[in-house]
Amino acid sequence: MKLIIDCAGGDNGYKATVGGALTALAKHDDLSVVLIGDEREIEKELSGKDFDTRRVSTVHAPGVITGNDKPTDAIRLKKDSSMIKSISMLREEQEIDGMISTGATGAIVAAATLRIGRVRGIRRPAFCPLLPTMNGGIVGICDSGANTDVTPEMLLQYALMGTLYLKNVYGVERPRTALLNVGVEEEKGDDLHKEGYRLLKNCPDLCFVGNMEGRDLLSGKYDLVVADGFSGNVLCKTTEGTALQLLKKLKTDICSKKKYKFGALFMRKMFMEEKEFMNYQNYGGSVLLGVEKTVVKGHGSSDAKAVAVCIDQAYTIKKSDMNGQLSGILERMTKD
Amino acid sequence: MKLIIDCAGGDNGYKATVGGALTALAKHDDLSVVLIGDEREIEKELSGKDFDTRRVSTVHAPGVITGNDKPTDAIRLKKDSSMIKSISMLREEQEIDGMISTGATGAIVAAATLRIGRVRGIRRPAFCPLLPTMNGGIVGICDSGANTDVTPEMLLQYALMGTLYLKNVYGVERPRTALLNVGVEEEKGDDLHKEGYRLLKNCPDLCFVGNMEGRDLLSGKYDLVVADGFSGNVLCKTTEGTALQLLKKLKTDICSKKKYKFGALFMRKMFMEEKEFMNYQNYGGSVLLGVEKTVVKGHGSSDAKAVAVCIDQAYTIKKSDMNGQLSGILERMTKD
Repeated sequence: MKLIIDCAGGDNGYKATVGGALTALAKHDDLSVVLIGDEREIEKELSGKDFDTRRVSTVHAPGVITGNDKPTDAIRLKKDSSMIKSISMLREEQEIDGMISTGATGAIVAAATLRIGRVRGIRRPAFCPLLPTMNGGIVGICDSGANTDVTPEMLLQYALMGTLYLKNVYGVERPRTALLNVGVEEEKGDDLHKEGYRLLKNCPDLCFVGNMEGRDLLSGKYDLVVADGFSGNVLCKTTEGTALQLLKKLKTDICSKKKYKFGALFMRKMFMEEKEFMNYQNYGGSVLLGVEKTVVKGHGSSDAKAVAVCIDQAYTIKKSDMNGQLSGILERMTKD
Repeated sequence: MKLIIDCAGGDNGYKATVGGALTALAKHDDLSVVLIGDEREIEKELSGKDFDTRRVSTVHAPGVITGNDKPTDAIRLKKDSSMIKSISMLREEQEIDGMISTGATGAIVAAATLRIGRVRGIRRPAFCPLLPTMNGGIVGICDSGANTDVTPEMLLQYALMGTLYLKNVYGVERPRTALLNVGVEEEKGDDLHKEGYRLLKNCPDLCFVGNMEGRDLLSGKYDLVVADGFSGNVLCKTTEGTALQLLKKLKTDICSKKKYKFGALFMRKMFMEEKEFMNYQNYGGSVLLGVEKTVVKGHGSSDAKAVAVCIDQAYTIKKSDMNGQLSGILERMTKD
């Protein structure tokens, strides 16, 4: 198993990406990594660390793509960037199985879609990040923003891809799947979602349980939420943002009075646990589903621990037969 | 000033709606109310209460529209329902200035749009609920789900209506207005939002500050968020849902250990304040903007206090010249 780590582009620099790679190497004996980025920076992070040198190689690609680069321009003009170099190598070298990047989302989607190729029959790749639910489980959101122009058929494909992902990587046998909509009744929403509902309901490969409203994402009633990329993006960012803002407010309010501060002393462990619970980095990156090789997009703010989780995800996906199963279902559907 | 209260349809029955009406009557000397619903239920709630009988009239309309009724069917078949009767009276009787309902959203939008008539030039009415921000202010979201089929021109109209609403009813002089999108950069999103961005940016009647992501809704950086009804609905419900779920989790976790419970004793007042802060009922109902007479939709779960806030909103809107200003701007834009 050989995975590429795009070492630049994240908020925490090479410390996070190279550090995460070393953690993953220690965990998986059969894993090799290709570290791509500014070689001096990579060497600096590797120096003095204990690791199996035979399983680590480096590629010099010092350029960085930022959120301000237009994705199509980035692909064309920044060929020396770590991200575009990573995707080119992933495409060209057959023995490489996947890549992890914490760089700019738009550029990753564009480059992966254009360069790596989709699973046959898949219209568009989709992101599927995970969030924790209130009963200790997880919920996947597919798509969370890889595409904003969506058809009902694409919603069905998102549901199939998300279902296979949760089954193969997280062991959820029959993921309870809901469609993000403006109300729970069948006839809610615009034409896209009405027709999407019909397709999801009639697909025997899914465990479709109906429409879901944004307020129920964390309830634990669903394993997978199917969404058009626009509203799926709003769903994920609003959930994360609201949780962070409320924690911040709680902290400010506690610090506002001595009495509260005193009470909080007894609850320190609990507050630490709440913070960990809501730390989305613990739940891995967004996997780009529907492309022929695995691409995991980690949060820009990922630390070494979070990068290691992303590498774990790519490792598990490769070990599974997710794309093979997806091809099988799509082929059968075409024949039907 | 005469307002209709649709007394049925909410989760808390006549106690909430009639109770809210009595509170509002005590506050505003120049207010009269028409209570519409099952007359026996209304009488039961009024009996023994101290109020100015000259300012209260009742209309018997015992039917109730629920979320399961298809809006168009409800309008056609449930003419004896309190909601349809309320809207018919609002349309027909010139001295009535507005109505408040805590009933089914879809039916209110459909009935109000079909029966009451829009401000000249307005394509579609839009809901504008308010949420609290972390720095103690409020933020309006327009549209939060009155329409899911949207054009760029409608986004511009939402921005204008929301701006005039916040200015006239909440005294926000130049509401900082953002467009809900999947990223902050100008070229983000689908064609609807790209073109919407252009229209908002070029409108001299707005204080447009750019795109906003879901995570920043509560940040206090914005007074008004313009959204297509689908993603606006997801934004509002996800924010409310996440806040409620986290509060619930905090409560469960505190109760799980004696030590935490002890610590929480010192923080009781703070937790009560957090709960009040996040109680969206304190921030009033969703006003339906763009219709000729005022319609305020309260949450289904509104209690008497929340209904009274909705009545206050309708009262303040009527006292202002919001629709007059809107007509003026639209007329000038047509000429330009």
